[in-house]
Amino acid sequence: MASTKAAVPQGAPSEPPKTCKVILADTIAKKMLAEVQSTLSAIQLPRRPTLSAFLANDDPHAYQYAEWSKKTCEEQGFSFNLVKVDKESLEEAIIAANNDPEVDGILVYYPIWPANQGHQDRYIQETVSLAKDVEGLCHTHLFNMYHNVRFLDPPANLKKSILPCTPLAIVKALEHLQIYNPILAYGNRLYGKTITVINRSEVNGRPLAALLANDGATVYSVDITGVQLFTRGSGIKALRHQVVDKPDLTLNDVLPLSDVVIGGVPTEKFKVPTELLREGVVCINFSSFRNFDGPAVKEKASIYVPSIGKVTIAVLLRNLVRLIANSPRQEGTSDDAQKAREGAFKDD
Amino acid sequence: MASTKAAVPQGAPSEPPKTCKVILADTIAKKMLAEVQSTLSAIQLPRRPTLSAFLANDDPHAYQYAEWSKKTCEEQGFSFNLVKVDKESLEEAIIAANNDPEVDGILVYYPIWPANQGHQDRYIQETVSLAKDVEGLCHTHLFNMYHNVRFLDPPANLKKSILPCTPLAIVKALEHLQIYNPILAYGNRLYGKTITVINRSEVNGRPLAALLANDGATVYSVDITGVQLFTRGSGIKALRHQVVDKPDLTLNDVLPLSDVVIGGVPTEKFKVPTELLREGVVCINFSSFRNFDGPAVKEKASIYVPSIGKVTIAVLLRNLVRLIANSPRQEGTSDDAQKAREGAFKDD
Repeated sequence: MASTKAAVPQGAPSEPPKTCKVILADTIAKKMLAEVQSTLSAIQLPRRPTLSAFLANDDPHAYQYAEWSKKTCEEQGFSFNLVKVDKESLEEAIIAANNDPEVDGILVYYPIWPANQGHQDRYIQETVSLAKDVEGLCHTHLFNMYHNVRFLDPPANLKKSILPCTPLAIVKALEHLQIYNPILAYGNRLYGKTITVINRSEVNGRPLAALLANDGATVYSVDITGVQLFTRGSGIKALRHQVVDKPDLTLNDVLPLSDVVIGGVPTEKFKVPTELLREGVVCINFSSFRNFDGPAVKEKASIYVPSIGKVTIAVLLRNLVRLIANSPRQEGTSDDAQKAREGAFKDD
Repeated sequence: MASTKAAVPQGAPSEPPKTCKVILADTIAKKMLAEVQSTLSAIQLPRRPTLSAFLANDDPHAYQYAEWSKKTCEEQGFSFNLVKVDKESLEEAIIAANNDPEVDGILVYYPIWPANQGHQDRYIQETVSLAKDVEGLCHTHLFNMYHNVRFLDPPANLKKSILPCTPLAIVKALEHLQIYNPILAYGNRLYGKTITVINRSEVNGRPLAALLANDGATVYSVDITGVQLFTRGSGIKALRHQVVDKPDLTLNDVLPLSDVVIGGVPTEKFKVPTELLREGVVCINFSSFRNFDGPAVKEKASIYVPSIGKVTIAVLLRNLVRLIANSPRQEGTSDDAQKAREGAFKDD
């Protein structure tokens, strides 16, 4: 009965359906922007929400991303002030924006200083007011993320903590792709999934590995210094992720184990070796460069997301609306606004 | 930031959510029965749909299952004639039911003859009229299933082929559990999933392995004679599954590779070795006996379905309604009935 030799019978599909589903960031972003609009209208801010974005480096990708962000912001009814400033004046400019009641959120394009002076980038991140930290990079936001704490104001739990934009954009993409299984309890929806994240920067790869492990995944975090394993321990009994070094493992060892592979290597040269991917793997690229070999990966993957930038911009606006909802400037407004604040983005 | 030593901070969840979601067959069955009712009302049969069920063995599980089936059938507005008959009179009784215009579907409880006389069970399966084969065990239905052919009447494609009840019940359970990823193309929704099925009977395990592989999964089919691998080949390029023997593999080798483990071993003694299961595995039992060690499996699995019988009964009624929708007795009825027939159960 299970002979492989029979001719294709009448009524059989004449060719198999396409095996790789390519999902564009735009599809995911549109859904999120609709939610942002609906929350924004409930908040009833009497003016256009305003984002100030500071560009203090010469990265052409950052400039392009800023231009895209401005366009999307304005299309969505937000104001976007792109401020070009030299490194030396940046701190002062941020402090002025912190104190400006017309500015709701502050964004800075990193990296600014070379990698060996990274503490200066950290210093700038901490300069941004917590109430305007739309990127989730202030220590309190980072602490909450790493400790799997979702609110700024326990035990009232009305003010949601802000998560970094690119990592959260990838989480939202994985939700859209149904890699998060909604049948599982909230907080455990990646249980059973093995995910490799190639990039362990402080802004993107490390927070992403932590978020995914906090949600129950087994995460291999890979960069040029080696492999680390992020998990909530055996049977995901721990409240938050733990990290162990895996000096005996390389990227080549962990790729064949992974249900999902996320590439974020910022160079033209790097390509994930397609031959080591599992059949039916899910591949997501968040680098400005293509980390996957496009034609080949489609022969191996079940789902491929070639870029994530538009989702990141949607998350940026979502975070901005959340900051506004968190803000005491909104106290004493209508019941609707209060409900919007309490209900805004229940699920992260 | 990722230190594992910090005390649990304020606002952290006080205990992790339960890690294993136990899904009862009843939950899945209820959803399907509601669909059956809605299709049935659209078909507008002028009398109660009638199932004749033949019990010719002494299996207490078969008797219990027959009693459950009768109860569910009657609750759902179907007639269920349970006919006890000796082996020697079975063929004649089935032929009479084939010719009875008041009987819409015919069900026989297997096995009837001992395993070494299994050809006699096959003979009985073929005795049932194709138009009343509610279990999908006639050769034409089996052929279509193994060849991934969905319709009986190409190229019109109005009459859906019938699939065997227990294998289809497990497919429906996997859809409910979102193991089938609806973001993928229909027909490929298990691509990337590795599934072990422990049981390779002709009625249950083998058709199940074929169905899952036809939908894109990598399936290890295990019984006491060894392991077989069912797949649609590299990159799921084949139109239907292929089978290869894996003489070097045992159950112990394939369990740690499996996202889903399905147990159907009909003995009290057999238990799946919990320690070999992947963290976060999905476990489904379709045996009358518990193939998984209940308390232990909940420490390891993300989802556990302890039994499937109620879903199987819902599939039985679904198949019966489909047979009625396929039937030429319904020609010339209202447009609604025609639409119901064409639209009935679009997705398998």
